Amino acid sequence: MGVRGGIDLGGTKIQAVVVGDDNDVRGQARLPTPKDGGPDGVIAAMASAVRTAAQEAKVETSALDGVGIGSPGEVNPDAGTVTNAYNVVPDWNRTIEVGGILAQDLGTRIGLGNDVRVATTAEFELGAGKPYRSILGVFWGTGVGGGIILDGRPWRGRGAAGEIGHMVVRRNGARCTCGRDGCMEAYSGRRAMELEARRRMKHGEKTHLFKIMERKNRTALTSGVWAEALEHHDDLATDLIDRAVAALGAGIASAVNLLDVEAVVIGGGLGTRLGKPYVARIEKEMGPHLFVDARPPAVHVAELGDLGGAIGASLLVRAE
Amino acid sequence: MGVRGGIDLGGTKIQAVVVGDDNDVRGQARLPTPKDGGPDGVIAAMASAVRTAAQEAKVETSALDGVGIGSPGEVNPDAGTVTNAYNVVPDWNRTIEVGGILAQDLGTRIGLGNDVRVATTAEFELGAGKPYRSILGVFWGTGVGGGIILDGRPWRGRGAAGEIGHMVVRRNGARCTCGRDGCMEAYSGRRAMELEARRRMKHGEKTHLFKIMERKNRTALTSGVWAEALEHHDDLATDLIDRAVAALGAGIASAVNLLDVEAVVIGGGLGTRLGKPYVARIEKEMGPHLFVDARPPAVHVAELGDLGGAIGASLLVRAE
Repeated sequence: MGVRGGIDLGGTKIQAVVVGDDNDVRGQARLPTPKDGGPDGVIAAMASAVRTAAQEAKVETSALDGVGIGSPGEVNPDAGTVTNAYNVVPDWNRTIEVGGILAQDLGTRIGLGNDVRVATTAEFELGAGKPYRSILGVFWGTGVGGGIILDGRPWRGRGAAGEIGHMVVRRNGARCTCGRDGCMEAYSGRRAMELEARRRMKHGEKTHLFKIMERKNRTALTSGVWAEALEHHDDLATDLIDRAVAALGAGIASAVNLLDVEAVVIGGGLGTRLGKPYVARIEKEMGPHLFVDARPPAVHVAELGDLGGAIGASLLVRAE
Repeated sequence: MGVRGGIDLGGTKIQAVVVGDDNDVRGQARLPTPKDGGPDGVIAAMASAVRTAAQEAKVETSALDGVGIGSPGEVNPDAGTVTNAYNVVPDWNRTIEVGGILAQDLGTRIGLGNDVRVATTAEFELGAGKPYRSILGVFWGTGVGGGIILDGRPWRGRGAAGEIGHMVVRRNGARCTCGRDGCMEAYSGRRAMELEARRRMKHGEKTHLFKIMERKNRTALTSGVWAEALEHHDDLATDLIDRAVAALGAGIASAVNLLDVEAVVIGGGLGTRLGKPYVARIEKEMGPHLFVDARPPAVHVAELGDLGGAIGASLLVRAE
């Protein structure tokens, strides 16, 4: 009894899990996010991923207590809709009734939440944030997202709190993929880093990043590509990651100066892939910018790793 | 019945008020912060300011329900102590039992709180923040302090939340008076601006700032000095204020991206003195950095003005 589903919807992959009452993973499935079927194709892939995970858990999807979804874009949990999830597929430029469609397809109720917030709650309840009452979750991947838990409760603001990636770390600085200048994400987001790598390569800098990408049969610089380039001491990759780490240090320290949380939990594709040594470097870069430097926050790698988002999403449909 | 006192303890002045049940100001007094008697001299001046305000309100200090104090430095409300309030007098380099001394001297109970937080609560309850449930208070003066109210309650973090002045707006940027690099306060704090003005004058730039200071019989560039220099289109003053406004815009927008509060209330010596036109300019500078730019927060000048800190402090001793 009490088996739930969870989906972490991303621009690269769709991760589904089926978990038991103790949030133990009983089944899981991972599919690449289909890029040519529009939002409909994505929703079909989400259903398919849940079915595979449910099969592994030996349960019908209609027997699940529900399926929670952590989604990018503008999420309306009450309406069950997701609007403008450009990161998932570029033509997701309208409001899609994700909840309604999947409820019918899977025969169970659907819960919706913001992807980063859901992952932060998962780390707070089940992962690296467990010992604390207030944490800042930082998800370092294609972009840089943030989730805030204050005194045990998520802080949502007017619905859009946590945009740590768009805190300014350098006025009049690098152009961000969001169109603004000097955002932390302009230095640290994987998409911005790839654009910068391409620019520099065009200007004659040498790098193996794109050769590794091709060999791995990827169409973008994934976290795995960056990790491999770093292992081989690729100069350009090393330089861009150093820049990203420094920007993360300044931006996260700024957030800590404002909020004075007990702990920072760093996850996301790059955060999880590069792991402890790089999170330790981010922590070191935070140091010089912390106002109360005698009492820094604890800094941890996200513990739930790749499945954190999907497990967190499953918490959305937990019985009260 | 129900008359309370409040003291706003600053590095330049000590402002005391006596207010009634409806927080109506019945008496007030303002004294320059004495610089040569150490913490003892400051405490004596605080007592004297409260006595004058009480006289004006026609009440004995011992008949007050209590006196609240908004103080800089490290405030311990339970112990009634203030530690390292260097901004008040440079030799306040230890823990002083402000509460105990004043309770005895004035014959009433003393409440202690952080100056910026107390002023933020005052604006939230009685001033420009009244229509909202979540606000960010920004106090632009000698330094730049911040206060946070989320869902109707002050957010204190581990005791040091709100250090908005030390959010990084430019990595590897200007040296802040706190010793760190690139803080918002390094561009916007009155003390940092004065240091920069002196530096530039030494390097041959022309300015009337220091002549105005002398004519006004001041020993530092007060908000009034800056305001007068701006009125006379002093080039250096204009340039430094432009720089301050731009840094405030970026830093406050960063905080809003993180917290998504409903409103920002800008006060402090410079904020109050320069008022609406300059707060409107800060709001404009925030614009390009706001992630949810279609729904910016309201931005207001602090309404309680010069007395806000003292009135806010009086709330500390209000009956439950």
